[in-house]
Amino acid sequence: MAAAAPPPPPTPAPEAPTGLPDSESTPVGYPLFSRIRLATPNDVPHIHKMIHQMAVFERLADHCVATESSLSATLFNHPPFQSFTVFLLEVSPNPLPNIASPNFIPIERIMQLDLPVIDPEAEIFKSGSNDVVVAGFVLFFPNYPTFLAKPGLYVEDLFVRECYRRKGMGKILLSAVAAQAVKMGYGRVEWVVLDWNVNAIKFYEEMGAKILTERRNCRLTGEALEAYRDAI
Amino acid sequence: MAAAAPPPPPTPAPEAPTGLPDSESTPVGYPLFSRIRLATPNDVPHIHKMIHQMAVFERLADHCVATESSLSATLFNHPPFQSFTVFLLEVSPNPLPNIASPNFIPIERIMQLDLPVIDPEAEIFKSGSNDVVVAGFVLFFPNYPTFLAKPGLYVEDLFVRECYRRKGMGKILLSAVAAQAVKMGYGRVEWVVLDWNVNAIKFYEEMGAKILTERRNCRLTGEALEAYRDAI
Repeated sequence: MAAAAPPPPPTPAPEAPTGLPDSESTPVGYPLFSRIRLATPNDVPHIHKMIHQMAVFERLADHCVATESSLSATLFNHPPFQSFTVFLLEVSPNPLPNIASPNFIPIERIMQLDLPVIDPEAEIFKSGSNDVVVAGFVLFFPNYPTFLAKPGLYVEDLFVRECYRRKGMGKILLSAVAAQAVKMGYGRVEWVVLDWNVNAIKFYEEMGAKILTERRNCRLTGEALEAYRDAI
Repeated sequence: MAAAAPPPPPTPAPEAPTGLPDSESTPVGYPLFSRIRLATPNDVPHIHKMIHQMAVFERLADHCVATESSLSATLFNHPPFQSFTVFLLEVSPNPLPNIASPNFIPIERIMQLDLPVIDPEAEIFKSGSNDVVVAGFVLFFPNYPTFLAKPGLYVEDLFVRECYRRKGMGKILLSAVAAQAVKMGYGRVEWVVLDWNVNAIKFYEEMGAKILTERRNCRLTGEALEAYRDAI
């Protein structure tokens, strides 16, 4: 799906606690240890569930025919960054265990939250040990801005699970892609937003993006595409 | 450049000759032998010139920094269809000589034109022998429609040189990409059109494409992208 899902529609953010800490030695907020790492075929069940949550969020559930096996068969056929690539966001209230990650140094952050996150799907999205859960993902691949004559990265999906939204996680996922593009000497990062999602547009503009208002996406799919089977 | 250039802005099509052929034995029109083949690194000088013509057409010449060497360094690093791929359109008033083409069976057509094409740049765009010239190109690469969980093809550029426009050549180039997508079992072909190019929108809709009016393209580039170098 081409639309970058987050940030979500305008719903009230949880209220910050109004009380001050009891003493200066009390830490402010609740730590959430987060890590962005490359997804592997083992992550397909979680990716699959998030893709379906994204489809529901976009009211396109009936367009979503992705299965675990179709994702497994198509997502990991090339080295990361050379073709379709998924960054996974993992979080835990406890320090994250070390992992092997040969192709990408994981990006780790400790976020201080005002309230602990109540994750009703923690069991479903459990990732390894130590209370680690998958909180979101970004799927991207190289594109080719011809006028620059060098590759860019196209972000097909950016998704953060509902209970982890409004905490800056969409920003760190998109920033990770942008940083990777710079690291590789690429010229652009591009994605799509729905025109009614004013919160998302504002968020992206604040991140430095330009919204290209003149462009319209064209799509040939289904039977209209099949009609070209013998057209040539 | 993301915009598919053709079809061009509305300018009068050349008038068809009003006279009838002198006799039934006189062929109607002028044959133009055309062929779509995979581009190779040897074609970079022609591709480079067409990219600059496309930039001028889109009034974005000052945004075009592509050089022959930057194109050579970035366009041909992967097998065709697995990454950035260029189909080249060659034409000649005479039958086209055979060529070796290991990865793609060239698509050949004989077009009957009402008038011969006067090509003021025939010498510049000469391609091999026998009056063959390069008339256009299409640049595309795989993308990943997540909800389908299988690849698609994204058309970054579609360009036909000015003197060859309004003869159905944009259509055969785009059809060739669509046919290739079907052949590979891919789920979509997508591209971008500028919203003021009503001729192009009509043309694409007649080809079976849907225009996704709600989507807006977002772009992070230049200094705004460089700012993410150390953001993570």
